Amino acid sequence: MRSGCRPLIEDKWSLHVISMLDAGPRRFSELKRGLDGVSQRMLTVTLRNLERDGILVRTVLEVMPPHVEYQLTEMGVALHEAVKPMIAWGRENVAEVERSRAAYDTRTVAER
Amino acid sequence: MRSGCRPLIEDKWSLHVISMLDAGPRRFSELKRGLDGVSQRMLTVTLRNLERDGILVRTVLEVMPPHVEYQLTEMGVALHEAVKPMIAWGRENVAEVERSRAAYDTRTVAER
Repeated sequence: MRSGCRPLIEDKWSLHVISMLDAGPRRFSELKRGLDGVSQRMLTVTLRNLERDGILVRTVLEVMPPHVEYQLTEMGVALHEAVKPMIAWGRENVAEVERSRAAYDTRTVAER
Repeated sequence: MRSGCRPLIEDKWSLHVISMLDAGPRRFSELKRGLDGVSQRMLTVTLRNLERDGILVRTVLEVMPPHVEYQLTEMGVALHEAVKPMIAWGRENVAEVERSRAAYDTRTVAER
């Protein structure tokens, strides 16, 4: 189980889930469809971890048919705000990072 | 090897290294001493990944005795700025997250 706060964002899917829920409550199936490549099991574990961490709440809606919804808590909304600059940095710098990796790989192959 | 930008912060030590280097260039030994619990191998891998990603540069100083220094690039300094809000969120919310985890664990044990 996770301890301390940093691990909150160390698994790949947490940030994706938080970003999707920032637009409002979502069902499991909606999240699954919206997260390209996530497995059923990984989404289940990610949602359970985020619920345990207090980032989202899981609500069972007693309607016909009954279903479950996931929604960010206040702490979750604040976390989404706090990671936005980092997500923006990623978008702005992905090309530069890829160039740097290519140059590094070329350099280190030449040094062997 | 890593691809895309998000993995940059997914390993535990990257953020610690970036935060330490934000205060100025550091030698390997200084980083090792400053990062409680990091192994020699993990610090080596983390520094190599960050160099490959273009977040820091590794300089061999031709002095007596010669030594190596690590320094953030402009992109690295910008990344540190971008992750500050998330680090602050972590500090402000660690107690609330721990409370949430304890309550979740009690609840889920009771439900078994």
